[in-house]
Amino acid sequence: MFSPSVANLVAQLTRLPGVGQRTAQRLAFHVLQQPEAEALALAAALVEVKERVRFCDQCGNLTEEPTCAICLDPRRDRSVICVVEQPVDIVSLERTHEYHGFYHVLGGALSPIEGVGPEQLRVRELLARIEAEGVAEVIICTNPNLEGDTTSLYLARLLKPLGITVTRIASGLPVGGDLEYADELTLGRALEGRRVVDA
Amino acid sequence: MFSPSVANLVAQLTRLPGVGQRTAQRLAFHVLQQPEAEALALAAALVEVKERVRFCDQCGNLTEEPTCAICLDPRRDRSVICVVEQPVDIVSLERTHEYHGFYHVLGGALSPIEGVGPEQLRVRELLARIEAEGVAEVIICTNPNLEGDTTSLYLARLLKPLGITVTRIASGLPVGGDLEYADELTLGRALEGRRVVDA
Repeated sequence: MFSPSVANLVAQLTRLPGVGQRTAQRLAFHVLQQPEAEALALAAALVEVKERVRFCDQCGNLTEEPTCAICLDPRRDRSVICVVEQPVDIVSLERTHEYHGFYHVLGGALSPIEGVGPEQLRVRELLARIEAEGVAEVIICTNPNLEGDTTSLYLARLLKPLGITVTRIASGLPVGGDLEYADELTLGRALEGRRVVDA
Repeated sequence: MFSPSVANLVAQLTRLPGVGQRTAQRLAFHVLQQPEAEALALAAALVEVKERVRFCDQCGNLTEEPTCAICLDPRRDRSVICVVEQPVDIVSLERTHEYHGFYHVLGGALSPIEGVGPEQLRVRELLARIEAEGVAEVIICTNPNLEGDTTSLYLARLLKPLGITVTRIASGLPVGGDLEYADELTLGRALEGRRVVDA
C-alpha cells in the first residue's frame, strides 16, 4: 500500500521502542508533510549522535569526550558511587538535584534467563574504581524489579568484605500517589521500608 | 545535562507528533545504544523518503511516480471519487477493502480560524477531475469534526448543481463499541443516521 521508500521508513521507525505499526505510519506521514529541512535535520542528528557519543572511560556514562562532565567535576563528592543499570538512569537521578557523588553504569542487570552474568556487566571496573578512589559508600540504584534486586544483592555481598557501606535506593509509594491504587508489591515494600516519624 | 549532539537529537525528535521531552529522551537513548547500522538506516530512510516521495498529479496522494498506483489501476471504478483531507486517510480507507473507486486529497479542511479557505485546498482540481472523468458520485470522507463537516457541506453545495450524487461517510458508534461509553455527540449522530433493519 505504501511506496517502497515510505514502507522502508515505516519499517525503520517500528524498530524504535514503543513505536508500533500505527505510530510509525503516523510519524512517517508527518515526515512526508513537514519541510524537507526538518526531516534532514533529524537524519543528520541521528548520524551525528552515533559519530560523536561514546562511553565515559570512568563511569560508563554517555559522553562526547573521553571522560564525562560528571566524572570531571571537581565539586562532586568522590566518596560516594551510585550504581545504575543504564546511562539514562543518571539523567533521572541528576534531575532530583539530591545526589552529588559519582556514578557507575553497569550496562544492565543480572539475568540468568537472558544470559547476563557479572562478566557481562561492568562489575570489574566498579571494583577497580572502589579500590583506586577510596570510596566510602556505594548506593545501588538498579531498578526495583527481580533483576535489579538480584544485582543489588550480588553487589552487596561482593562489596561488604571491602569494608564499604552498601545501600539500596528505597522502594515505596510514589509521592502524590494513592494507597488505593498502589499494587500489593509496592505497598509491601513501602511497609517494609517504614521509618520512625520525627515528631 | 545532555551532550550537545544528544540534546540536538532530542530537540529534533520532539518535533515529531506525539513525541514529548520524555519520549524523545527515551528514543534518543535507544538510538545511542542500538547498533550504528540501525541508526544510520533510519537516517537514510528519512533522507530517501524526502527525496523520492511527491504528490500524485491526479489525486494528490503520496507517490514515488508522477501518478500514484491507485490512479493508474485500470480495475478501479472511475465513476466514484472519495474526497479525503490527507494522504494518510487513503491508507485507512484502503485497509477496509470496501472501496474501489478513486480518491482526491484536499490537503486539509476548511477552517476560517486557521485561515484555510477553498483556495488553500485542492478544490479546483477536484472540479476539473469531475468534469473530465464523468464522475457519478463523490463520497466525502473528511473527518467527522467541525472543520470536516463544514468542508462536506461546502463541497455538497458546490457539486450538487453539477448533477452528481454527493454522499457523506456515516458517523455512529464504532463497531465493538458500547453505548455506555459513547459520547453524546457520537450517539446523537448514530441516532440521526439510523437505518431500517432488513428483516
